[in-house]
Amino acid sequence: MGRSGINSPIGFAQLIPPVAHHALMYVDIGSVLDSQPGLSRAALERLDERVAAIHEHIEQEITTEGFGYRSLALGSETDPDRIANAVEPLADCETVLTVGIGGSALGSATVTSALGVGENNPVCDNVDPQQLSSQLSSLTWDQTAVHVVSQSGTTAETLSNFLIVREAMADAGVDWTEQTIVTTGADGPLRELVDRHDLPSLSVPAGVPGRFSVLSTTSLVAPTILGCDVEQLLAGGRAARNSLSASLFETPAYAYAAVAYALEQRGANINAFVPYAERLEPFAEWFAQLWAESLGKDGLGQTPVRALGATDQHSQLQLYRAGRHDKLVTLVRPRERPELTIPSTEIDALSYLGDTGLGALLDAEFEATEASLAAANQPTVRLEIDALDAYSLGELLVSMEAATIMTGELLEVETFTQPAVEWGKRAARGLLGGDDTPEANAVGDTRSLTIEGP
Amino acid sequence: MGRSGINSPIGFAQLIPPVAHHALMYVDIGSVLDSQPGLSRAALERLDERVAAIHEHIEQEITTEGFGYRSLALGSETDPDRIANAVEPLADCETVLTVGIGGSALGSATVTSALGVGENNPVCDNVDPQQLSSQLSSLTWDQTAVHVVSQSGTTAETLSNFLIVREAMADAGVDWTEQTIVTTGADGPLRELVDRHDLPSLSVPAGVPGRFSVLSTTSLVAPTILGCDVEQLLAGGRAARNSLSASLFETPAYAYAAVAYALEQRGANINAFVPYAERLEPFAEWFAQLWAESLGKDGLGQTPVRALGATDQHSQLQLYRAGRHDKLVTLVRPRERPELTIPSTEIDALSYLGDTGLGALLDAEFEATEASLAAANQPTVRLEIDALDAYSLGELLVSMEAATIMTGELLEVETFTQPAVEWGKRAARGLLGGDDTPEANAVGDTRSLTIEGP
Repeated sequence: MGRSGINSPIGFAQLIPPVAHHALMYVDIGSVLDSQPGLSRAALERLDERVAAIHEHIEQEITTEGFGYRSLALGSETDPDRIANAVEPLADCETVLTVGIGGSALGSATVTSALGVGENNPVCDNVDPQQLSSQLSSLTWDQTAVHVVSQSGTTAETLSNFLIVREAMADAGVDWTEQTIVTTGADGPLRELVDRHDLPSLSVPAGVPGRFSVLSTTSLVAPTILGCDVEQLLAGGRAARNSLSASLFETPAYAYAAVAYALEQRGANINAFVPYAERLEPFAEWFAQLWAESLGKDGLGQTPVRALGATDQHSQLQLYRAGRHDKLVTLVRPRERPELTIPSTEIDALSYLGDTGLGALLDAEFEATEASLAAANQPTVRLEIDALDAYSLGELLVSMEAATIMTGELLEVETFTQPAVEWGKRAARGLLGGDDTPEANAVGDTRSLTIEGP
Repeated sequence: MGRSGINSPIGFAQLIPPVAHHALMYVDIGSVLDSQPGLSRAALERLDERVAAIHEHIEQEITTEGFGYRSLALGSETDPDRIANAVEPLADCETVLTVGIGGSALGSATVTSALGVGENNPVCDNVDPQQLSSQLSSLTWDQTAVHVVSQSGTTAETLSNFLIVREAMADAGVDWTEQTIVTTGADGPLRELVDRHDLPSLSVPAGVPGRFSVLSTTSLVAPTILGCDVEQLLAGGRAARNSLSASLFETPAYAYAAVAYALEQRGANINAFVPYAERLEPFAEWFAQLWAESLGKDGLGQTPVRALGATDQHSQLQLYRAGRHDKLVTLVRPRERPELTIPSTEIDALSYLGDTGLGALLDAEFEATEASLAAANQPTVRLEIDALDAYSLGELLVSMEAATIMTGELLEVETFTQPAVEWGKRAARGLLGGDDTPEANAVGDTRSLTIEGP
């Protein structure tokens, strides 16, 4: 019997309850017991001993506010009133332009998109002159708050974008100091700007890497201004943190981590992450950063591949099903969706679609894809939340952070650092004349063999 | 000496010319001569013998209009006047809603985005009720043309979306038959709809799989209505097709194919595809479909990973540099960009950014990333076009199709089919009650092991 059955051949399996309730994230790892690569129940039970020991370590680190680990406590640590007070002068703005990059942009975009106000939270997270020009020309500046975010206060992309945004505001006759709010550290160029112009500002939380800062001041300015239920988001985060326990069989986040780790060991160096909900597309990008930057080190780490259900079935499913057995496919969905009925039609061949819900079609595609991969022995994991609301989203975000931390400990890598990106930053700075760096000098040494047409 | 040098240690290398001109796509494969995995010049020269033989085969297949291969001739075969005539009743529409999925949506989105009118070409390419509702409510129906695209005329997602779109048009008091244009095959439910309501329509080209149909009626309706230079686009496609020659050292598309194939053989089962231009983001999605669905079969095929420069340096670069040596990183950019100057600033620490071009910053990041990966012995290939204009785009698209076809022949897979997606389609159809399929019955057999919180 399977997912739709009454009894499971596996004693510790828990069935999906018929009535939705606010439990935590659900993780179904049944498929990997039969897949290739895959792992046996015995292997999972052996892994559970390491999971238990690491869990104790994680709990201790949270308690002692260890660097990085304290991210898991942000559901309790973040003060929503402090954020609400800081944004108060901007509370009437209809649009919040987030100027940041990486962890300083993805968290905000993830929350506002998931909660349905993503269109009011455009993000400047690249330095493309063509894109930025058209983006800025589409904004109504007197109704736009600008949130500038950089932990260090020195990020070249963010500061460059902000200098251009500030000029655009001035050109539009708006006083930029009245509509800008800054989140940064205790010092650095952005803090200097705050002090000089007496701007509203927030401080980044201590001991939290950018990619783990979604439930902090870094990411919650736009959600607060745009009316998201930040208190419920934080409550969901607290619930996820409090649910962590010493067994992967009782902790969805750890079950996910253990399976991903074990599959990477067995050849799945790719993690295809496929939400079946458009509003979770930025969440997939957020997860891709979390996973890649935390685990991609020491010659290890799965490569996250962002995809979108059902759209990418028409793009990637051929590969996932019939290509190499080098992937874990993570299928993500909310169990409940708003409904939209497909009208009936005069075309006979399409009558089976008429009066069906569009969400039912999407769910049928989800289940068909999962079964189709299982039939090809390709490993999948199913992640579900009850619905796309603030509480479930908070659970999901903190659960995925906990999963990433557990995976990093299983891999024995330094989850909270990102040393390999520094080389390129120094090179770019050197190329722009900011410093005479050896990295910039090395740029010309790359071997070239250019092929061009006639 | 390297990319910026005057002399190359490799006799057949061609230097990047100091003055931009309308040559074909440029492909720089120098980095893979030193990387891990990588390949030697001798290995490339051996591969060139296979490339020459396959090139002869491709030429013959184009000439005899072989299935799939004829895609490469669309630059000559497609009649822009026929498309212009068909869309004539809709020529004044400001917005074109493309209703399609996979190859029936990505081509249009790729062209309109690259040529700067992507915002006027929203796409319905998913079946998410939440997303579709908000998308439809944002449209001004009396200024919107709807282009429905399905090769078979039976695609469940596309037909469902269209039935909902049609109802929304009726609700808005618009006569849907006056604002809808259809591209489909010679028969099927969509063709039946065309005949019944006398809709303007176009036929999909024969012998061209959807993912290879970007330069055809399938994808050029929105670009035509929105004023893109379709003739130049086709001219660029013709130039790329005509430039194919019997050596990878003279054909950028084949150089790319040979390197990707050889690196996959040597352990790079991932192709991270990173355009440094926001307008090329849909192009990366288009490429990901082309690559995955064409090559992902028989246990082979690189997994394409879509990323975006410079944004994803803050998300993925740590992994690309310090993770597993299992990737080819393809860096893509136009050589020319419009300029936008970063204003000077009162903050000393940022003065190095002031009065620099934002495009110069983006290019510095491109070069720094390339060098940073080379310094870590991670293989990269650089793809460049002169500028983001219709002609260069046509070259780029057909070149990547030729590269995919060459790679498929090197891998000895059936490039033009996608048999593995059929299982899931039959299962979904069965789950919705359209048919009693064995695949739908198998959906319940997937093993379940659900972990949930307390």
